[in-house]
Amino acid sequence: MPAKVSNFYAGPAILPEPVLQQAARDLLNFQNLGMSLIEISHRSKEFTAVIEEAEALLRELLGVPQNYRVLFLQGGASSQFFMIPMNLLRKDQLASYLNTGVWSNKAIKEARLFGQVAVPWSDEANGFVRVPKDSEYTADPKSEYLYFVSNNTVFGTQFPVMPQSDLMLVADMSSDILSRPVDVSKFGIIYAGAQKNIGPAGVTVVIIREDLLDRASDSVPTMLKYKTHADNDSLFNTPCTFAVYCVGLVMRWLKEQGGVTEMERRSKKRSGILYEVIDSTDLYQGHAAKDSRSTMNVTFHLPSKELEEAFLREATAQGFVGLKGHRIAGGCRASIYNAFPLEGVEKLADFMRAFAKKHG
Amino acid sequence: MPAKVSNFYAGPAILPEPVLQQAARDLLNFQNLGMSLIEISHRSKEFTAVIEEAEALLRELLGVPQNYRVLFLQGGASSQFFMIPMNLLRKDQLASYLNTGVWSNKAIKEARLFGQVAVPWSDEANGFVRVPKDSEYTADPKSEYLYFVSNNTVFGTQFPVMPQSDLMLVADMSSDILSRPVDVSKFGIIYAGAQKNIGPAGVTVVIIREDLLDRASDSVPTMLKYKTHADNDSLFNTPCTFAVYCVGLVMRWLKEQGGVTEMERRSKKRSGILYEVIDSTDLYQGHAAKDSRSTMNVTFHLPSKELEEAFLREATAQGFVGLKGHRIAGGCRASIYNAFPLEGVEKLADFMRAFAKKHG
Repeated sequence: MPAKVSNFYAGPAILPEPVLQQAARDLLNFQNLGMSLIEISHRSKEFTAVIEEAEALLRELLGVPQNYRVLFLQGGASSQFFMIPMNLLRKDQLASYLNTGVWSNKAIKEARLFGQVAVPWSDEANGFVRVPKDSEYTADPKSEYLYFVSNNTVFGTQFPVMPQSDLMLVADMSSDILSRPVDVSKFGIIYAGAQKNIGPAGVTVVIIREDLLDRASDSVPTMLKYKTHADNDSLFNTPCTFAVYCVGLVMRWLKEQGGVTEMERRSKKRSGILYEVIDSTDLYQGHAAKDSRSTMNVTFHLPSKELEEAFLREATAQGFVGLKGHRIAGGCRASIYNAFPLEGVEKLADFMRAFAKKHG
Repeated sequence: MPAKVSNFYAGPAILPEPVLQQAARDLLNFQNLGMSLIEISHRSKEFTAVIEEAEALLRELLGVPQNYRVLFLQGGASSQFFMIPMNLLRKDQLASYLNTGVWSNKAIKEARLFGQVAVPWSDEANGFVRVPKDSEYTADPKSEYLYFVSNNTVFGTQFPVMPQSDLMLVADMSSDILSRPVDVSKFGIIYAGAQKNIGPAGVTVVIIREDLLDRASDSVPTMLKYKTHADNDSLFNTPCTFAVYCVGLVMRWLKEQGGVTEMERRSKKRSGILYEVIDSTDLYQGHAAKDSRSTMNVTFHLPSKELEEAFLREATAQGFVGLKGHRIAGGCRASIYNAFPLEGVEKLADFMRAFAKKHG
């Protein structure tokens, strides 16, 4: 086995090493049952314990109030783009969406299939370099909800604090959930695809306020009603048992490490090291405005395509993987989620400084 | 590690041992990359090779014609219940459904949300003990498609040969895909949740004729259009990379074992052994009519609840796991998919004979 590389993939992304070790053991023989964890029924008492623990730990770590349900769904965060308006919005009703990047844009497109959509703030014309302050927009008070993406994986921007609003908040937290404390009670729905901060691809966590479960019309297919999954504790049909199991392991690890407060401290430290390199050298230009910088995805450009290619080539050769930016944003991106070790960030910073000295 | 038990779960179900061994290794270090297979991007060249191989082998094993696409989707087979009519059926159009069990019933319910549904044959009144012959029903020739479930996991019935019809066939093959040859060219759509014959839970295989991709109306959400996934080679959004990877491993194993013809031979042999016990003792009563017996799920009752409980208790103690019938059908069920070893069936037959001698 080679030395671990530094895995900067944006998702699926790095996972804690103890989680992988445990999963590899349980793939062969789970709890000494003589069966793999992926060979047992989702209705077995063993799997019931797995999903219950995953939920309990997630609730504890995020401080999810009693009147919220936690669902483990399939279909990725992309399925929430339509499920949210399909469940919460009627043709003549309004929802407000803050447009801060690729994923909010996609969510807006799907919402328009179901109701009226207002976009009180968009940074599309500027290439999505920042997120708004509360004072920079006014959401129509008739809106059923105010939708936003807390961290924009593609462009490397993040709300430093969550928007404040009298409206019910709905948030895509796919790329920064569990990286900082959040007051869940301000939200109607928080959702996140697992493959950044929670586990492997294959499960999407949806935290939904109970009173919203009854909003869907009768014409919504059974599988697309949140109520279906809430009423059946996410076991209406067979979930992705492996992914749910891994979420449970990641939650255990997260708790052992000190929970979301500690994750916030680490993520600020990790990202701070990289932003310091960007700010203190001339070679790298950060994509995000300073007041909107993400602690999860650090995005930057080099002065030319040739230099970017050289940077990525040399980085790859030295074991830094996944630094190529999203195809829409271009440039470079270092994704540094909860499981990313500080040491890997320090090594990348050293490499960036050396590369800047050579090419600056 | 204890001796392997005999795993008769209906799904998630037993997988080939070499698949589990390989997956456990690759969970720690995939292709010597220094990363887990679940830590790499779904857009990496390594994962692209994984999904391409899984598709190529599946196409080869099932003989999928060139004008069909193979999609790896999330959401389980249950999501196909609504996706099929959502994509193929308009309000004023008709589809015909054969009602042979729990899953066809659920599919009928969802289809009614989108168009006109005819049920030319149903065995619901008799407790779903058999499937129809072609001569026993007439499907309205105006139907857009004729829908059926090739194998009914809950009740243990199976179409011994696929229905013949001038109508386009659409089939849920979740529990017997790749267990026998099939002429794909007769079908518009074949789909199957992975967790019985194909891999772990988390991916649903959809085989769809290309000309059907354009049928969805503009009001269908992007993620629910088959065309979205076909146009993006199942990578429009992040798929369940682990499950897709496992499907590839299972396909490799299946090919090495001799493909679907060999699977058919084995499944007839395995199920034949259990049906022989049922027919030659007085204690066990098969649920399915003899002409509709499943080679994948052998369902049977004992004369009393007490005896059934004693049977399940003693079986469990001897290492036979998952023999309890589905909660709707009751009784007992031995699910014996492709990966189930003949030896385990022989051991169960011995146990059943001994139990019958003691209690008969």
